[in-house]
Amino acid sequence: MTNQRKQVMFDELSSDEIAEAAKASTVVIFPFGSIEAHSTHLPLCTDSIQAEYIAVEVAKKTGSIVAPPVRFGICNATRNFPGTLTIQFNTLYALVHDLLSELVRSGFRRILIISGHAGNSHMVMLRLASQDIVSANEAKGVRVMVLSDFDFADELIPEYAAVGDGHAGTIETSRVMAIRPDLVKGKGKADVWRMPRFEVIAHPELCIPSAVHGDPTAATKEKGEKINRYIIEKVAELVEELKR
Amino acid sequence: MTNQRKQVMFDELSSDEIAEAAKASTVVIFPFGSIEAHSTHLPLCTDSIQAEYIAVEVAKKTGSIVAPPVRFGICNATRNFPGTLTIQFNTLYALVHDLLSELVRSGFRRILIISGHAGNSHMVMLRLASQDIVSANEAKGVRVMVLSDFDFADELIPEYAAVGDGHAGTIETSRVMAIRPDLVKGKGKADVWRMPRFEVIAHPELCIPSAVHGDPTAATKEKGEKINRYIIEKVAELVEELKR
Amino acid sequence: MTNQRKQVMFDELSSDEIAEAAKASTVVIFPFGSIEAHSTHLPLCTDSIQAEYIAVEVAKKTGSIVAPPVRFGICNATRNFPGTLTIQFNTLYALVHDLLSELVRSGFRRILIISGHAGNSHMVMLRLASQDIVSANEAKGVRVMVLSDFDFADELIPEYAAVGDGHAGTIETSRVMAIRPDLVKGKGKADVWRMPRFEVIAHPELCIPSAVHGDPTAATKEKGEKINRYIIEKVAELVEELKR
Amino acid sequence: MTNQRKQVMFDELSSDEIAEAAKASTVVIFPFGSIEAHSTHLPLCTDSIQAEYIAVEVAKKTGSIVAPPVRFGICNATRNFPGTLTIQFNTLYALVHDLLSELVRSGFRRILIISGHAGNSHMVMLRLASQDIVSANEAKGVRVMVLSDFDFADELIPEYAAVGDGHAGTIETSRVMAIRPDLVKGKGKADVWRMPRFEVIAHPELCIPSAVHGDPTAATKEKGEKINRYIIEKVAELVEELKR
Amino acid sequence: MTNQRKQVMFDELSSDEIAEAAKASTVVIFPFGSIEAHSTHLPLCTDSIQAEYIAVEVAKKTGSIVAPPVRFGICNATRNFPGTLTIQFNTLYALVHDLLSELVRSGFRRILIISGHAGNSHMVMLRLASQDIVSANEAKGVRVMVLSDFDFADELIPEYAAVGDGHAGTIETSRVMAIRPDLVKGKGKADVWRMPRFEVIAHPELCIPSAVHGDPTAATKEKGEKINRYIIEKVAELVEELKR
Amino acid sequence: MTNQRKQVMFDELSSDEIAEAAKASTVVIFPFGSIEAHSTHLPLCTDSIQAEYIAVEVAKKTGSIVAPPVRFGICNATRNFPGTLTIQFNTLYALVHDLLSELVRSGFRRILIISGHAGNSHMVMLRLASQDIVSANEAKGVRVMVLSDFDFADELIPEYAAVGDGHAGTIETSRVMAIRPDLVKGKGKADVWRMPRFEVIAHPELCIPSAVHGDPTAATKEKGEKINRYIIEKVAELVEELKR
Repeated sequence: MTNQRKQVMFDELSSDEIAEAAKASTVVIFPFGSIEAHSTHLPLCTDSIQAEYIAVEVAKKTGSIVAPPVRFGICNATRNFPGTLTIQFNTLYALVHDLLSELVRSGFRRILIISGHAGNSHMVMLRLASQDIVSANEAKGVRVMVLSDFDFADELIPEYAAVGDGHAGTIETSRVMAIRPDLVKGKGKADVWRMPRFEVIAHPELCIPSAVHGDPTAATKEKGEKINRYIIEKVAELVEELKR
Repeated sequence: MTNQRKQVMFDELSSDEIAEAAKASTVVIFPFGSIEAHSTHLPLCTDSIQAEYIAVEVAKKTGSIVAPPVRFGICNATRNFPGTLTIQFNTLYALVHDLLSELVRSGFRRILIISGHAGNSHMVMLRLASQDIVSANEAKGVRVMVLSDFDFADELIPEYAAVGDGHAGTIETSRVMAIRPDLVKGKGKADVWRMPRFEVIAHPELCIPSAVHGDPTAATKEKGEKINRYIIEKVAELVEELKR
Repeated sequence: MTNQRKQVMFDELSSDEIAEAAKASTVVIFPFGSIEAHSTHLPLCTDSIQAEYIAVEVAKKTGSIVAPPVRFGICNATRNFPGTLTIQFNTLYALVHDLLSELVRSGFRRILIISGHAGNSHMVMLRLASQDIVSANEAKGVRVMVLSDFDFADELIPEYAAVGDGHAGTIETSRVMAIRPDLVKGKGKADVWRMPRFEVIAHPELCIPSAVHGDPTAATKEKGEKINRYIIEKVAELVEELKR
Repeated sequence: MTNQRKQVMFDELSSDEIAEAAKASTVVIFPFGSIEAHSTHLPLCTDSIQAEYIAVEVAKKTGSIVAPPVRFGICNATRNFPGTLTIQFNTLYALVHDLLSELVRSGFRRILIISGHAGNSHMVMLRLASQDIVSANEAKGVRVMVLSDFDFADELIPEYAAVGDGHAGTIETSRVMAIRPDLVKGKGKADVWRMPRFEVIAHPELCIPSAVHGDPTAATKEKGEKINRYIIEKVAELVEELKR
Repeated sequence: MTNQRKQVMFDELSSDEIAEAAKASTVVIFPFGSIEAHSTHLPLCTDSIQAEYIAVEVAKKTGSIVAPPVRFGICNATRNFPGTLTIQFNTLYALVHDLLSELVRSGFRRILIISGHAGNSHMVMLRLASQDIVSANEAKGVRVMVLSDFDFADELIPEYAAVGDGHAGTIETSRVMAIRPDLVKGKGKADVWRMPRFEVIAHPELCIPSAVHGDPTAATKEKGEKINRYIIEKVAELVEELKR
Repeated sequence: MTNQRKQVMFDELSSDEIAEAAKASTVVIFPFGSIEAHSTHLPLCTDSIQAEYIAVEVAKKTGSIVAPPVRFGICNATRNFPGTLTIQFNTLYALVHDLLSELVRSGFRRILIISGHAGNSHMVMLRLASQDIVSANEAKGVRVMVLSDFDFADELIPEYAAVGDGHAGTIETSRVMAIRPDLVKGKGKADVWRMPRFEVIAHPELCIPSAVHGDPTAATKEKGEKINRYIIEKVAELVEELKR
């Protein structure tokens, strides 16, 4: 069936196409992101579009479908910048829990959550909500994976970027150049966050005035394409593992 | 400034562009929708894409920006269909409350919420969250409008559709034909929902097996374009009113 | 059994009488209302006493019992007037959910909620709580209807009142004159609310300084009696439908 | 002003009468109760009508007004009997908190809560909600008293009833005979609850099959009248203390 | 098995020792306390160490184990003193509910909660959480007792202390002298709390400036030892009752 | 003042000693832990006693005081083992938020949270609660650090343990041998957890049957003492930084 389907986006299908997809044990790839400050050269949706791009490419490759992206996440470090839209941890938990419940109700049993935003609180909430769904639906054999595309992107740091490359740095800028070059404005400037190791502070933005951690000037579209291809391959392997 | 901005999408801008837009008293248009069964001829995202299309067109016309769309809503009538992704009323309230708070924190004072899904519970939650934001930020002069594009579309029923036209009917199908013709599959079939007037039931889907209320076979792209144009004009007037 | 019972009020019965009533498949009529400003000529309990009156009369007529009235509701438009006692939407949901659960635990399977207050948020919360009870108790065959007596009263507007008649207007004033004439002070004054169609505002009371929408001076006790009789008949039919 | 007012019931007044009463520093007496099994001879509303009767009499005597009674409370011991309508502790807290907030918003500063139900969890929730209101409104000088009419009724046990007299016993039955003789069915039977001192159990009703703790056969209307008169006097003194 | 176990503290055992203890139907004694002002002569942990001492002694005597003490409770009267650490009622409920659930999941079916703090709100929350656990686990035969060691200590008031002895008074001071003499500083001073009987106030500390209710100068280590011994004996009897 | 104080434990002090300590700008060290399976050779309280030991030693060294330890945490990996007592993320958040609020109310402005349990969800909740306290009390200059003693212990892995050493492994076993040798039973057995990298599973215990990750047989008391000394030194430096 998946071969004939024209769309990979869950919500571009009709209800009966979804029922059919569920019956065919289709894997659902669920992209999450954030809307947060990414310096002056990258858009607020930087995290989101990376995960969404990967999700769509992997879905095409593996006959999966892509759940409606959730661009709202928990952003602690950038929470005081204009344009960052951070939500409370309870809100994210409830949203993820509700949506996974609905996927399960619709008949899906294999879900891969991929988050372009890799903030620690954010990832924890994705995992806690998933864990509660998996435990509550044990009898139905529901399986859920939760990852960030940066789990794989970071494996390429030695090759494509300097050690410590991160937020709005070489890799992230390269990837956006490959996905949505129209959204990249200029080349950015290399910088380093100076967040305290242990202190929890009211004004993290003072430690990261440029909202860059790494060197965006070293970014190229070619790097981005290679990194994206690598991540697509790796995530596709996970989808195949979920199918088994 | 708004004339030079290339993007209208909030999250395709950078943090400093957002700061600038807020300083310029830019209106934020915030599209909401749903992911719910719309018969076999329309996609699950039917509600969402209509509001998003209107939002973008009005934003272009009025120099506004479009907040990241929220496609998750409360869907009671279609909640047992495969593919419907309904969320709990508390989740929607929290999400809207969090996001409006963040817009206000970022400096925006004029927000227009437009929802392609017009379910009663859904609209009430949008309004209650907005009301709490408006009251809590009275001193800042925050103003919020909440409407459904169907508030205007329904004004055209006598002209373009039979009385009672609704979910996945003539108007809605026409509008999707005008916006995303690639997502329309066939012509659908006319039908009527037979929901009990007062009884709250566990299986509303049995009263609306086709998930159609109206006559989609009377839909045309031309009707959809005219209806959309009308709505755009009306919503643009509201934006102008908000600017004052 | 119901014929011999002297009381129709649920809470004027004893525990064993309730057990017996539940066993006899008695319908429970559950009146809701509000405590909110109704101009200078009507009391704060205006909404409540109308629904309670209807509930008692229908109960007598149909052998039903009347659950302890809930006078606390969600009042948005009048929420800044002295004397309005509005509660949060979560509080109303919890209260209704708790009470319906207890009726079901006590053995009742047929419940009709009638609300004298017809505010949109209020009605939505009554319906959402009812829906969750009905779905959770599907196996027990629990049935719940939710309506406002104004659903029927409004059908008589062409006959007894001017188009648009509403809050503290002809119909409502007439009905209170018929039910509790001692609580009506003077004749009131005709007025119209000028609430914005879409804007959610911090001070709705400024749009409705008199808290009247309609013409109370056209009210008469006779009109009230006829309207009440009509509603009683209509609600009694619903109760009979519930009994089937 | 209070002398001219015909009604003592808060919600039988109009919004402007309430504003006037608040301005005149009127004390609000707020009756709470329960709906719970009281053996076969007393109605479910036994607790409620006692507090409401006292509230009205004290209000008349002291020029106070009576807030709309809340008959819903937390009933642990009788929670498994048919007809008992117990609510969750969070629901009661929220309801009391919302309603006291609204009284304060309406301008009242002196509130006396009198509960006919004296269950421990119930009283604690009344007090916790009141405490939070008092602390949050310290600057406004809000004062709240919380008591049960049984705090005074029990002072008369040596005189009118045997030691240990309680639920549906001599005093309570006598009081209902004086207040609503039409709701008393027969004389009841003396019994004793045998609740475990420390164990928290799933079926307390097995320890109190008759739902009587005391001797209702010793009840008389005359005792009831004297007890009620005593309580009225005592509560009136508290109201005077609140006025100071 | 219980004879060979060296430790009585639940959390000093290993996971498999716990599994074994659960299989052997071991009773879990769960000490609760508070951290609150106890005048100048007693430490903040006064309530906690009394319950913990009793718990350990009873556990040794009866072959039970002692769950990890919870020193956090609800302290209303002393809530404005420095050093008092009071938690919200919802927090205590959630904590107790979570922990009892985990004991049940680990296989335990007999639990005795003993609280050194006997504040009314505090005890109610312990009981409500326990009640919900007992009802939800009826099929598993879970039994829970909830008491304060002061339920027994107060039985000795005529013998060891003046009537009305309470917070930081003769009995409490004596008990701490017997348990942790190193934590007693000086002899304290006799005093009486003058809390209003019914009014709920923002500043209870003004009614109890010394945080003493009773006469600590009459305290002796010998009294404390005798009282503790009495309580241990009484609680041990309850444990035996739970074993049956 | 801190030199004369005999106790370092917050709750072994009296209310006035706490007031004095707060006035002297004393740092509060707040130890957190867990109660979770740590194989057969270590007790359930393993995480807790390490953090508590460090806290006390650092407090002695720096004139700080130690807040009452919280041994209840979020344990995902070991949550199905007998004896693990995991609490919900909302419960931990609420508890930490309440307790930090109370420390701030008591006058403290410098708090160091040290957690012996380093689970990701657990640390995130400690940080989120702290962040909310710090932001809400910005005007008071409240500063909070959050760390795990394993943040420092892990720095010594190359020296004292094999790469990957973790739960109940060489370092943890050595540390417990140095702190509470009486709680160590035998030498344990080397093992490796085989948790899936991304999949969120219902039965993590099947991936870690021994609840060991590392080689406990390589543990020695001497290693433990050295590691503890190193951590104490490092944490003491943080306390000094907080004092500035």
